Amino acid sequence: MEALSAGQFSLVYNAFSFGIATFAAATLFFWFGRSQVSHHYKTALTVTGLVTFIALYHYWRIFASWGEAYEVANGVVVTTGVEFNRAYRYVDWLLTVPLLLIELILVMRLAQSETVSKSLKLGGAAALMILLGYPGEVSAGIDSTRMIFGVLSMLPFLYIVYSLYSSLGEAIDRQPEGVRGLIRLARNLVVVSWFFYPIVYFAPFVVSMSGGTSIAVIEVGYTIADITAKAVFGLVIYAIAVRKSEIDAAKA
Amino acid sequence: MEALSAGQFSLVYNAFSFGIATFAAATLFFWFGRSQVSHHYKTALTVTGLVTFIALYHYWRIFASWGEAYEVANGVVVTTGVEFNRAYRYVDWLLTVPLLLIELILVMRLAQSETVSKSLKLGGAAALMILLGYPGEVSAGIDSTRMIFGVLSMLPFLYIVYSLYSSLGEAIDRQPEGVRGLIRLARNLVVVSWFFYPIVYFAPFVVSMSGGTSIAVIEVGYTIADITAKAVFGLVIYAIAVRKSEIDAAKA
Repeated sequence: MEALSAGQFSLVYNAFSFGIATFAAATLFFWFGRSQVSHHYKTALTVTGLVTFIALYHYWRIFASWGEAYEVANGVVVTTGVEFNRAYRYVDWLLTVPLLLIELILVMRLAQSETVSKSLKLGGAAALMILLGYPGEVSAGIDSTRMIFGVLSMLPFLYIVYSLYSSLGEAIDRQPEGVRGLIRLARNLVVVSWFFYPIVYFAPFVVSMSGGTSIAVIEVGYTIADITAKAVFGLVIYAIAVRKSEIDAAKA
Repeated sequence: MEALSAGQFSLVYNAFSFGIATFAAATLFFWFGRSQVSHHYKTALTVTGLVTFIALYHYWRIFASWGEAYEVANGVVVTTGVEFNRAYRYVDWLLTVPLLLIELILVMRLAQSETVSKSLKLGGAAALMILLGYPGEVSAGIDSTRMIFGVLSMLPFLYIVYSLYSSLGEAIDRQPEGVRGLIRLARNLVVVSWFFYPIVYFAPFVVSMSGGTSIAVIEVGYTIADITAKAVFGLVIYAIAVRKSEIDAAKA
């Protein structure tokens, strides 16, 4: 099938294993961190760890699926006929992308009603974005189904980006001065890391994506984007929770 | 056997994997949440997490059974001769359905004698409902055995629905004002999500349920119903436990 070189196969294989190790370590770090922040921020860290835990589960499955899809003998890569299950990523995002936005909302510690309404709006839009992308991703080829669902999926995506800078931006302005910069960083990290996903989704319409190089770029790229959006982002959430706990303690 | 397309096979496969990830994440969330509620509500959250933990175990088995029942090679799905074990769902429900009702009763923090009597009545009726459904589900075909046990199973089902609105409804009216709405939401969520199960059970008497589309609708539908009745319902129980802990603390 695809002309994947042994080097490309190994690079992706090792990137997935790197993902497993990173997400496992990140999960434990965030959950250990729960005991070091005030009780107001424990739920934010629980959810931060859940996001990397769910990613860990899926990278475990993705890694196994990759190993079943290809066989390497004497430096030559051949497909086994078992298809690499690309959809694990969508199953992962359906859970983690709404939770990512919710952990950012939780660590801000807004009024209860605002937390609930913002979580439902942003989390709901995120779930819709992923659900709309799925039929396009699993459709047979580079066709109108992929294009239509891709465009539909961009609508909630743009709504989320807009909300993160408009209504959430205003809520950030009301945060204590000492953490405002960190919260803006977390918000920007979400947006920047997310832009990789639609680029990969629409790229096949522009350039051929069937060769080994394309597959390696996509899979390694997704892995880097996932680590940035979940583990690195989670570190910023952790830093915010620690800083806010200190600010609260200083006030009391 | 059944004409299952590769897309339908994958959709069900991914839905089961989604179930595994969701129930694992939900279990951890509920058990972490134990430290954030007063000691009166810890048992409710223990049980809430047990329900999703038991579901996690069964979805793990169901996922494996699905993978063993079919083989996909180059986009074509064929049955392997190993039967997909539908009965795992009944084993799951026999444990989780009584526990679901018990977690709702526990989070209400009724008088001890009322907790015990309501748990025995509702939990017992729920176990009876599942036990009566089982012989119909595993019977050879769409026959009188399925119909008779289905009808018998509906008797405890209707008793539970009636109780949730009569005697449990009165107990809800005595709950603190700030949580009454949430408890009613939890109660309604149980009833609404449960109606999917008898519909699927009796549907074969009305329409042919053997094609790939039917199988996909049933399995994905069960997964959504299970996630709603266990994980989403559990989130409402968690919210009730947090709110009641706050109300108790404000009173003291």
